[in-house]
Amino acid sequence: MPKRAGLDSFFAPKSVAVVGATPTEAKGGYGIIFNMVDSFQGPVYPVNPGRDEILGVKCYPSLRDLKGKVEMAVVFVPAEKVPGVLEDAVEAGVKAAVIESGGFAEVGEEGKRLSDRCKEISEKSGLRIWGPNCTGLVNTDPFIFTPFVPVRRGRERLKPGCLGIIAQSGMLAAGFLIQYVVSGFFTISKACAIGNKLDVNEVEVLQYMAKDPKTKAVVAYLESIVDGHAFLEVAKDMAGRKPLAIIKGGRYEESARAALSHTASLAGSDEIIEGALHQAGVIRLEDFHDLMNLGKAFSLHPGPFNLATPQGDNIAIITITGGAGVVTIDMVRSAGLKMADLEERTLKNLAKVFPDWMPPHNPVDIYPALEQNGIGIFADVIREVLADNKVDGVILLPFANRNMEYFPFDLVGKEVKRRGKAMVSWMFGDTRYFGHFEECMREFGVPVYSDIRSCVIAIDAYLRFSRIARSKASERPPREMT
Amino acid sequence: MPKRAGLDSFFAPKSVAVVGATPTEAKGGYGIIFNMVDSFQGPVYPVNPGRDEILGVKCYPSLRDLKGKVEMAVVFVPAEKVPGVLEDAVEAGVKAAVIESGGFAEVGEEGKRLSDRCKEISEKSGLRIWGPNCTGLVNTDPFIFTPFVPVRRGRERLKPGCLGIIAQSGMLAAGFLIQYVVSGFFTISKACAIGNKLDVNEVEVLQYMAKDPKTKAVVAYLESIVDGHAFLEVAKDMAGRKPLAIIKGGRYEESARAALSHTASLAGSDEIIEGALHQAGVIRLEDFHDLMNLGKAFSLHPGPFNLATPQGDNIAIITITGGAGVVTIDMVRSAGLKMADLEERTLKNLAKVFPDWMPPHNPVDIYPALEQNGIGIFADVIREVLADNKVDGVILLPFANRNMEYFPFDLVGKEVKRRGKAMVSWMFGDTRYFGHFEECMREFGVPVYSDIRSCVIAIDAYLRFSRIARSKASERPPREMT
Repeated sequence: MPKRAGLDSFFAPKSVAVVGATPTEAKGGYGIIFNMVDSFQGPVYPVNPGRDEILGVKCYPSLRDLKGKVEMAVVFVPAEKVPGVLEDAVEAGVKAAVIESGGFAEVGEEGKRLSDRCKEISEKSGLRIWGPNCTGLVNTDPFIFTPFVPVRRGRERLKPGCLGIIAQSGMLAAGFLIQYVVSGFFTISKACAIGNKLDVNEVEVLQYMAKDPKTKAVVAYLESIVDGHAFLEVAKDMAGRKPLAIIKGGRYEESARAALSHTASLAGSDEIIEGALHQAGVIRLEDFHDLMNLGKAFSLHPGPFNLATPQGDNIAIITITGGAGVVTIDMVRSAGLKMADLEERTLKNLAKVFPDWMPPHNPVDIYPALEQNGIGIFADVIREVLADNKVDGVILLPFANRNMEYFPFDLVGKEVKRRGKAMVSWMFGDTRYFGHFEECMREFGVPVYSDIRSCVIAIDAYLRFSRIARSKASERPPREMT
Repeated sequence: MPKRAGLDSFFAPKSVAVVGATPTEAKGGYGIIFNMVDSFQGPVYPVNPGRDEILGVKCYPSLRDLKGKVEMAVVFVPAEKVPGVLEDAVEAGVKAAVIESGGFAEVGEEGKRLSDRCKEISEKSGLRIWGPNCTGLVNTDPFIFTPFVPVRRGRERLKPGCLGIIAQSGMLAAGFLIQYVVSGFFTISKACAIGNKLDVNEVEVLQYMAKDPKTKAVVAYLESIVDGHAFLEVAKDMAGRKPLAIIKGGRYEESARAALSHTASLAGSDEIIEGALHQAGVIRLEDFHDLMNLGKAFSLHPGPFNLATPQGDNIAIITITGGAGVVTIDMVRSAGLKMADLEERTLKNLAKVFPDWMPPHNPVDIYPALEQNGIGIFADVIREVLADNKVDGVILLPFANRNMEYFPFDLVGKEVKRRGKAMVSWMFGDTRYFGHFEECMREFGVPVYSDIRSCVIAIDAYLRFSRIARSKASERPPREMT
């Protein structure tokens, strides 16, 4: 059996062929070739025996006509034709194939047979296979974009970031891409839809991201974990170094069964999975909304999740509304975090800008100070609270209105950077002012959410990550590079 | 002690005075008079001894100059001046006063004394007091809008709806108004910010809404419940008739203390509250985001929460992505709902539009049928699933892209109305197509969310409400009117 190459030929191929490329816009094969021609910087070869050229690029009848020219092939042809295409790929010296077609092990006996045949080809030849039944992968640097969702000027629009995404469902990955990546909700290093995992699986992708210097944190949606032991090993290696948050679907019998039919994978016993993930420092979430929102927090590296200071889990709340303060305390405490007991010095300094009838405490209800001093007072209050040695993280609850233009972003940013403590912000009120506030805050690593739950999930993750990082640093000599 | 009038003079006053009206735009007294002049349909009287006119309307030095002319006064002057204003109000024959000023029982001894003085005036004279320390109330029909948040053309923009909102925090209420009501996120019948509850409290407001024919459902944020017994009585009366969902802040010691300082109210033992609320059929939530999203579901009356059919809690999922199906099953089961076991007939009919390699089951993964038949197939699949006697509610998980223009809204709407079953929808993908989809779906009572949690919370509430309604209907003779 030939030695198996790593994943570099997927993430950084020098040349790409698209087998099943077509000029028919309604078909997936069009989206793939469109994206490649539009954004890939090396040679692109459409393959389709019925065409001479597609999108102005010369088209080839078969991969066999491209001997030695193609490093990676993206394959989107009917399932029954895929084994033949893979044989062509082997013949042509292709190193890696992304199979986006469905109709394999997820659809019954005939598909299973085709799947086995592909696996056999891969094992015998060393050709690495990604998928099938997936949208493939995105790398922002160097740029490669295999999904069939058409994204014009992808290379310019998908700015390189530090977040890695893994999803075991093609449509979800496509949805995540459009809703969160293309829209600029967060920036990514890599996004991977791994599909049926005939060859490349979530463990290998995660190992790759664990070593990838451009990936600083990972969020993943997984239906099954093929090799639980190896997965936990890489998760443990990442703990305190690169945060990892996952949704592991299939907690109940019905969902485990659905996962099986969807990606032909077996889900393990949920109790065992839950315990093992926690032990390995993995954050487990339930809803995509939460996972993507935490991804946004992670994507702000080298912001607050690279914290040096925090030792504990003591939260200070700075709020413009007492009511939101009350609700946030409830959610902070439900999450197992504590409310910080502010130092005397902090209270004394805050009292200077608070009216006499309102002695400050945690939660810091900033409204009266704001009425008295104007919106600039946010900077003073945030400075004092961040400087407090008993505070590990701050949740900010401001109100969006036209005054947000005058929010002291620069002063706040300076303090956040200086103290290196976690800060997250809720936002409510006039939605017209959300975007500007969020943009300004993310510059210094503060994620902004419109639900309090996401604030608590993010700050909990930040603080948990920092504690693991600290305890790892004190336990062992500097980690050897792997 | 004089007989105390009900709340009609707040919700439907024939004339209004604004004490503390000012032409200075930065002040709250400006917002209030602006809104009144702009949108109130009866006579409006600004009161301010230092002005002759405000916004072109004649201004009066005192309420005493308006004897017999004012039904409701909105008061926004410094706390120490409020008792004098109330005495003027009594003299002038005012029936109801909304006090928006802060600085009363929530700020210490002097404030407490002022508060007691106001209470005394109210009790002796029969003048009803709303607040203090609040933004007052909104009624969409007849239109009255007391908050100091300026909303131009409020009467046109705030279309009458069936949802009642109660919030015990002024800023929150203001935020909810702007973010959810003014933006059209949902339509309301009434919104009430009750503040310190010196006289009018949450129980009386809830009683009013329970009887109000224009209010069909209520969502509330409460920090304290002054008269737990009376609150539970009205909640029980509403059960199965008008859904009621609340956030009751102050579950932990720290939050209970914060609630105390914020609205001068005592929170009860949380365990007792939790049990009693559940017994009374009240839905308790934790985050504002969830409460507002459930409010959206309720606001779609006479949609699915007026269900006649559902007897159980069996959910069918129709999804374009297997992965979202798996995650949704997990959340459905976590919420205590069941996955419906589809009837043979349903499976047989669905199989006709599904490819051979993909026999349908619940969750119904519609993607292959869609590939084969186009987006119109949603209507056929939804029709079959809604017709299934073992299905009580449907969660739809489609993908937003430009094809959404061709979604068979009319056919789907017809089936939803015909079957009278609960349906909710998630939406992910290209956010540009969210708005249109949501608008079309809400026409026939289907709320659309961008998180799955909100789908599950809404369908759970719909089904729970229907079950209570059915069991009440079978247990007793038609409810006497109260």
